[in-house]
Amino acid sequence: MNDRGELASWLRLTLIPGIGNAARRALLNNCGLPQAIFDSSLPTLSAIIDPTLAERLLRHECRAEIEAALDWAGQPGNHLLTLADADYPQSLLSSDDPPLLLYAKGNTAVLNRPMLAVVGSRNATAQGLRDAEAFARALGEAGLTVVSGLALGIDAAAHRGALATLAGTVAVIGTGADRLYPARNETLAHEIADKGAVLSEFPLGTPALGANFPRRNRIIAGLGLGCLVVEAALRSGSLITARLAAESGREAFAIPGSIHSPLSRGCHQLIRQGAKLVESAADILEELRWGTHPAAAGDDDSSGTSTGEEERVLAVLGNTPCPLDTLAARSGLTPAALLAMLLPMELAGRVAQLPGGLYQRLH
Amino acid sequence: MNDRGELASWLRLTLIPGIGNAARRALLNNCGLPQAIFDSSLPTLSAIIDPTLAERLLRHECRAEIEAALDWAGQPGNHLLTLADADYPQSLLSSDDPPLLLYAKGNTAVLNRPMLAVVGSRNATAQGLRDAEAFARALGEAGLTVVSGLALGIDAAAHRGALATLAGTVAVIGTGADRLYPARNETLAHEIADKGAVLSEFPLGTPALGANFPRRNRIIAGLGLGCLVVEAALRSGSLITARLAAESGREAFAIPGSIHSPLSRGCHQLIRQGAKLVESAADILEELRWGTHPAAAGDDDSSGTSTGEEERVLAVLGNTPCPLDTLAARSGLTPAALLAMLLPMELAGRVAQLPGGLYQRLH
Repeated sequence: MNDRGELASWLRLTLIPGIGNAARRALLNNCGLPQAIFDSSLPTLSAIIDPTLAERLLRHECRAEIEAALDWAGQPGNHLLTLADADYPQSLLSSDDPPLLLYAKGNTAVLNRPMLAVVGSRNATAQGLRDAEAFARALGEAGLTVVSGLALGIDAAAHRGALATLAGTVAVIGTGADRLYPARNETLAHEIADKGAVLSEFPLGTPALGANFPRRNRIIAGLGLGCLVVEAALRSGSLITARLAAESGREAFAIPGSIHSPLSRGCHQLIRQGAKLVESAADILEELRWGTHPAAAGDDDSSGTSTGEEERVLAVLGNTPCPLDTLAARSGLTPAALLAMLLPMELAGRVAQLPGGLYQRLH
Repeated sequence: MNDRGELASWLRLTLIPGIGNAARRALLNNCGLPQAIFDSSLPTLSAIIDPTLAERLLRHECRAEIEAALDWAGQPGNHLLTLADADYPQSLLSSDDPPLLLYAKGNTAVLNRPMLAVVGSRNATAQGLRDAEAFARALGEAGLTVVSGLALGIDAAAHRGALATLAGTVAVIGTGADRLYPARNETLAHEIADKGAVLSEFPLGTPALGANFPRRNRIIAGLGLGCLVVEAALRSGSLITARLAAESGREAFAIPGSIHSPLSRGCHQLIRQGAKLVESAADILEELRWGTHPAAAGDDDSSGTSTGEEERVLAVLGNTPCPLDTLAARSGLTPAALLAMLLPMELAGRVAQLPGGLYQRLH
């Protein structure tokens, strides 16, 4: 855990308006922890980022917002997770643009369990809702935590299906963690926080803004070993989530449907673009090689013996930190299958994930 | 046209029982036309095929069956097409194991039109039947002749849809051409012979034998530029047809459906194995680049000017006969797209197809 001062610096870094994540990360890479950034001189910072931004960074102290966030985090079940926290979801580190700070409600331990994203249309068909719930329940029963976006329709059905299992569920929202949206899902959000977690990267009080939802989708995509789209229209947010997942080396999955259903069009487009067509949760588990490593037994302690496949991954990992793509090329496994294996290996202390998505073998 | 004696020799070659097509083709390759085979000595033939088969070949004259077949061919609308006939479907030459002789009822000119295979389950759903008919009609309206197997269900619906268009339809049957099976489709068979053709490679009188249907399927696959599966269960004949099509360089297409419908399982399996998921006939036409060459205008005379793509194919074809795969590698076009372009180019006299699936540029 960060101490209060360090956490305040993380908050300040993320709360200063008008600075993008790329600039923030450049500062962290150059200065180290956030407090070191704010202890730097204007000329030092101006050598790293635009001088106007550097000036703004040193001027804005954001005291009131920082106090409010620290107060919020002091309430039971509320958490602030920085990129440097052990509870920060390690899977995000191998995704594009991991958030520097996450606001979490609920059980943060769930965030480092193996997850699968399940997303889809707000205006789903009755069959789509049933499928979302059934797939999520089956994935949960197999030990995968379902991550989705708390939207009406497919998202809510997926959360509900997963809530019926021990694996729990994670909702990533596009508003501040103190503002649950949509209001109709507020009860569901509280159930999720009880058995899993509700996550947001947006400052407290952030209302529902259209522009924030695609940013939220990248977190859903980054948390999952893969992304299942249950029903989606063409040009919908769910397709963006699946594309982001595929771009980060995750597997995209889609459920086909009638050619006469507009809500199957998006899934069909994904399949044409390379997403795996799935008819059952078992198809997903098979593609991820889920069941070939200890965590699949539903035991996320997974300190058991390593499997033959794990030995193979350890062998190709060698002793130099190595990105996922290189591991995939060396092992012949897909990035999604590797992620599914590396997570329990991390939990078992056999490998560590380093910033920048590098994996290192531990001896 | 063959004269009667030559045709009798072709019939004799195909009617002698217990000799496979591979042996027959070896004989043709070595001796030339069938009459030359029967004029050869036993030692000569024994050097080409198994001596027992060679002995049987010279002993069996099959006079009664040959007479019956020639009588049948003398009736209006009936035809015997040998591998050497101009009306023999040229598309079969680039497929595996082209039949040496075809029995045809109807209009043989249709056999050298660009075709698409449309196949599927005998026990189709009501929606599947409507889809088969609608896709076949749209393909026919675009100038593609639909080829199918005259079975109940999807096949019959596809034939019906195609019959509503000028492009007509071809039924390839697994019984003798004088025995229409199933009996319930006899009226349909007569309509098909009126506006297209009914084809069989089996001797007259051949009853419905399970073993013959997979052989029949290879002809359906070979005739089409591609093969569309509308609805099919796992482990069904339609999947074999699609696989044979893909193995001969044709494109396989499949219509997705509900994951809860057993008759979509086969289509989903095909899509996973690389078949194109299609939602409309337009998807098929696009994949085949149909519409980029003259025949797509519904004018199968197609003596018009060549397109830019045709010029490109002619350029890569050069002056030496060349197999389809090589042409595909040189042009960057898929074999299916090439077949769709080469057919009208053949009809326009710009290229010729030689035995063995080689293409030659004509000047």
